[in-house]
Amino acid sequence: MPNDTPFLPLPAGEIGLLTDLYELTMAQSYFAEGIHGEAAFSMYVREYPPDRGYLVAAGVDDAVDCLEALSFDTDSIEYLRSTSIFTADFLEYLRDFRFTGSVRAMPEGALFFTHEPVLEVTGPIIAAQLAETIVMNQVQYQTLLATKSARCVQAARGRPIADFAARRTHGTEASIKMARSSYIAGFGATSNVLAARRYGIPPTGTMAHSYVTSFDSEIAAFRAYSRMFPDRSILLLDTYDTINAAHAAVKVAHEMESDGHRLTGVRLDSGDFDALSRQVRRILDYAGLDYVRIVASGGLDEYEIDRLITGGAPIDMFGVGTRVGVSADAPSCDMVYKMVSYDGRPVMKLSEGKETLPAAKQVFRQHDPEGMMSADVIGLATEDVPDAEPVLIQAMTDGRRAIPPSAIADARQRVADGLSRLPQAHRRLRQPDHFPVSISAELSLLESQIRGRLTAALTS
Amino acid sequence: MPNDTPFLPLPAGEIGLLTDLYELTMAQSYFAEGIHGEAAFSMYVREYPPDRGYLVAAGVDDAVDCLEALSFDTDSIEYLRSTSIFTADFLEYLRDFRFTGSVRAMPEGALFFTHEPVLEVTGPIIAAQLAETIVMNQVQYQTLLATKSARCVQAARGRPIADFAARRTHGTEASIKMARSSYIAGFGATSNVLAARRYGIPPTGTMAHSYVTSFDSEIAAFRAYSRMFPDRSILLLDTYDTINAAHAAVKVAHEMESDGHRLTGVRLDSGDFDALSRQVRRILDYAGLDYVRIVASGGLDEYEIDRLITGGAPIDMFGVGTRVGVSADAPSCDMVYKMVSYDGRPVMKLSEGKETLPAAKQVFRQHDPEGMMSADVIGLATEDVPDAEPVLIQAMTDGRRAIPPSAIADARQRVADGLSRLPQAHRRLRQPDHFPVSISAELSLLESQIRGRLTAALTS
Repeated sequence: MPNDTPFLPLPAGEIGLLTDLYELTMAQSYFAEGIHGEAAFSMYVREYPPDRGYLVAAGVDDAVDCLEALSFDTDSIEYLRSTSIFTADFLEYLRDFRFTGSVRAMPEGALFFTHEPVLEVTGPIIAAQLAETIVMNQVQYQTLLATKSARCVQAARGRPIADFAARRTHGTEASIKMARSSYIAGFGATSNVLAARRYGIPPTGTMAHSYVTSFDSEIAAFRAYSRMFPDRSILLLDTYDTINAAHAAVKVAHEMESDGHRLTGVRLDSGDFDALSRQVRRILDYAGLDYVRIVASGGLDEYEIDRLITGGAPIDMFGVGTRVGVSADAPSCDMVYKMVSYDGRPVMKLSEGKETLPAAKQVFRQHDPEGMMSADVIGLATEDVPDAEPVLIQAMTDGRRAIPPSAIADARQRVADGLSRLPQAHRRLRQPDHFPVSISAELSLLESQIRGRLTAALTS
Repeated sequence: MPNDTPFLPLPAGEIGLLTDLYELTMAQSYFAEGIHGEAAFSMYVREYPPDRGYLVAAGVDDAVDCLEALSFDTDSIEYLRSTSIFTADFLEYLRDFRFTGSVRAMPEGALFFTHEPVLEVTGPIIAAQLAETIVMNQVQYQTLLATKSARCVQAARGRPIADFAARRTHGTEASIKMARSSYIAGFGATSNVLAARRYGIPPTGTMAHSYVTSFDSEIAAFRAYSRMFPDRSILLLDTYDTINAAHAAVKVAHEMESDGHRLTGVRLDSGDFDALSRQVRRILDYAGLDYVRIVASGGLDEYEIDRLITGGAPIDMFGVGTRVGVSADAPSCDMVYKMVSYDGRPVMKLSEGKETLPAAKQVFRQHDPEGMMSADVIGLATEDVPDAEPVLIQAMTDGRRAIPPSAIADARQRVADGLSRLPQAHRRLRQPDHFPVSISAELSLLESQIRGRLTAALTS
């Protein structure tokens, strides 16, 4: 029973303050100067995290929900007053402030590439500026978690994966979003019960070592658990000795059979998964228990899953936590939110290695005759690139959602579709080829014009 | 105006579900089997993250607040019922469930080392088991963030550091806890306004590139900002060209002087900080602006701060975001929550490389005559080690707080005190010596007795 109301990470009246102070001081200055022109901002990733050849857009719908709710409650206004930084009339303005801008964004679950705007905000400069911190905060890490999870799904080649990361993520909000992001990316289940409830994700779980150690013997623990859950027992084998435990599991499975039940599986949580899974598979098969599945968990990521499956380890299902739940090799990325036009004038920054593409943009996706993605073109939002599909869609108009958020099932399908259309060279786990992304002639011309103008101004 | 009521990450009635499903299925089995004995769990870190020689306990007070509030609201019970996993009488039990266990824990901000329990939970087995996920979730990442931040503070050798991480952390909750953890660790300020309000941390901020690009010229932007904030302006120099911008800042600073104000600082956000800070310092000093401070931000961590200061770069203040706000080189750690006794019987697991120390424990800290920390002894909770100070304190008794949470200022003082007493060899940024932690004779004897008994049982 998923709930369709947005799950805001904070009360609406506190979202306004979940921002960097400079967003508010800049807003105060704009307010005092009477600067209220329309600005456009592009949010994009400058560089791929290690070994990534694509990114999975996630958290976009949360960002839009936050923008729709963004406001300053009385405590927030009083706190700002207490800092003595702001003027009384600006605080009155904030008291009634709502985000009135518009948002074009990639739909939840869309694949995207470096330099492509995953989200663009257009609106009065104060609104567009105040959107920055919360939008970056929501989209960046969820995109990293969805991307890392999608890589695991590819590595597992059809074997189901469950999210076990709740204890390792950076807080409860992150744990819930990890469950959501990984499900969108193709995981089959989560151990996180609150996330399962919120998003309608299948909940899953086995047993902990503490369960085994709380009984006088391992087999007593196995018997008690399978008595309670005769149709969904996965027994944990590595509390004392995995092979001994496998023999105990066989005994219990045979006892269950005589009661008309079947042991669902056994779990390996430490040691050499390749060797242990083969030994345990042999023990189970020899006992006629070929239906009992082997689950592996503990320190897994896409590289380790790939290594195990490539090597032929008879593992049927994976539980991933630590390394995926924090996107361990890329816990942050170079995602930025840059002003690209102000008051009808395209702008860019020239900081060394951090140049921006000016103006509001669109991403145009081209496919070959077989339906495989062949190239993207970043063009102006006002352009029309023939035989290509615009990827950014209108998500919010004048402060209100233009479309409902994606159902989680739709976002999940979008990832699966995208990956099935992305050529393998860009999906390789290591050193993938960069997907071809070009700049349209119009955008390229505009960029060199502005660069020329800025450089002339600097040297004049 | 910090608020003293706990800031729970979730509504109290949802904290019960922020758990791994297996905690609930194990609880269901215990409930059905009538297993209600008292269990003790130790939470500790098995291995240091890279280059760490100490850990800073953080999130402990949040964990205790969560345990005090932990409950299952009606929606949670109904969700659990819908899964068809649980019995009706167990769901009734959960409806009235409150955590009734006790907690001994390191005080917020205490230093600790591998294998030492940072927190121990004792209570009826269902309660002690249901505590696991939320306690791990809250303490692990905050400890990592506080530890990483403390390393930055050491590297900065007295220069102030501000938390700029809000856009990079894994969600809003993580951003707020990053601000708190880094302030405890010795940062001077945060850009995160909501965190500043909640915890009474000084808020800070400068301006963004977008501010500069929204004006017709850089100097127009600098003038507008300093007009608005004549006593707290930090001008961002790298939008187009840092050296050009430094000359513009000089001009504006002189204009401010003639109005009786002083420019607070300038900020470098890209390029070679060592070279640029020297050039900018010379430009400022030559113009008689020796009071204008230089702030550096962008990709900084303890290693980079150390390199800059060791090299003599004239940087007065650092803003850190990305790498520290996700503890980039150690976004998770090997923190575990293991059952150590059940029903008066000490227990341990033997999994390869993952052995636990049995029984409820205490950490005894020894100091040399100069007050420097010399060694820790992990002993039984019932032991008394002479001339040593027990570090774990009673935080919660029978489900209620035994002491109020630490004031943030006290936690901050605790980190400063701890670090001042920790010999330099363990505070080195790279490859620090391991602080000597030994096991008491009583604990050691108990461990070998249990290991012998378990091994005998396995081989019999």
